[in-house]
Amino acid sequence: MKRKCFAGESCPIARSLDVIGDWWSLLIVREALLGKRRFSEFQKSLGVAKNILTVRLRKLVAYGILEMVPATDGSTYQEYALTEKGRGLHIVLMALWQWAEGCLFESGGQEFVLVDRKDGEFVRPLALQAKDGRSLGPGDVNFVPRQKSECRQPEPSTKNGKKLR
Amino acid sequence: MKRKCFAGESCPIARSLDVIGDWWSLLIVREALLGKRRFSEFQKSLGVAKNILTVRLRKLVAYGILEMVPATDGSTYQEYALTEKGRGLHIVLMALWQWAEGCLFESGGQEFVLVDRKDGEFVRPLALQAKDGRSLGPGDVNFVPRQKSECRQPEPSTKNGKKLR
Repeated sequence: MKRKCFAGESCPIARSLDVIGDWWSLLIVREALLGKRRFSEFQKSLGVAKNILTVRLRKLVAYGILEMVPATDGSTYQEYALTEKGRGLHIVLMALWQWAEGCLFESGGQEFVLVDRKDGEFVRPLALQAKDGRSLGPGDVNFVPRQKSECRQPEPSTKNGKKLR
Repeated sequence: MKRKCFAGESCPIARSLDVIGDWWSLLIVREALLGKRRFSEFQKSLGVAKNILTVRLRKLVAYGILEMVPATDGSTYQEYALTEKGRGLHIVLMALWQWAEGCLFESGGQEFVLVDRKDGEFVRPLALQAKDGRSLGPGDVNFVPRQKSECRQPEPSTKNGKKLR
């Protein structure tokens, strides 16, 4: 389905959604980040039909999110490894995780929590930060045409920018 | 479609995907963050069929992401306003934006860029941070059972945790 966007077809959010626009794809990436590499491992952990998994894996390879590599055990199997682009989705998954943690679980209802591997402490909530480290909320950012931004002039007006409320 | 998860049905990522599990919903949230409040505004900017938009808006209200409020101009129309839970999706959208910025555009192909409203500077890439401020990559976090995490003991082993690669 074609989606319209404030910047035509070039909105990065819409473009991301076009690429990882079905939840199976993101769940496959989640499993890959957890160490799954083989078709049978994905199939077992996700419980998804083989034909659907085949299509999704092919799509993820075509988009350069996964790549086919020789099996690490020297067998003739091929495995699916995350590319750098695929590993970049880690932040998207962490944002989804933290949003659910904050909003979709009743107190004590969550079985697993996200911790720092080094010391077992909770990690900080993701926050958008300015160049100087200030936290930026939805109302603190603008979407401006690239040319304008390349001037890097301070922006007293939002006339040509889109401000998130 | 039912999705399996390493923590059964309780994985926060899967739960988020169940709630905002179609891209129209996230694009509606994007438009709401940009200031859209009326059915006709969403319909115009997204170009989505009215019946689909009706269903999506109802779902977002049912999930507490949007709420119906009286029109700000005093007319009899009702408007859709983001709740705190809905505004919390800002970080998810920013993660999708930045991932696309880094991976899905050829050099110079992006029309709009995300800047700090105060000074027009680019914002920092989102990064997961430890309690002490260290940046945490996929391999630096664990998903551990809640009870275990509440002890807050350092974790020398990943035996009972899931480590992201």
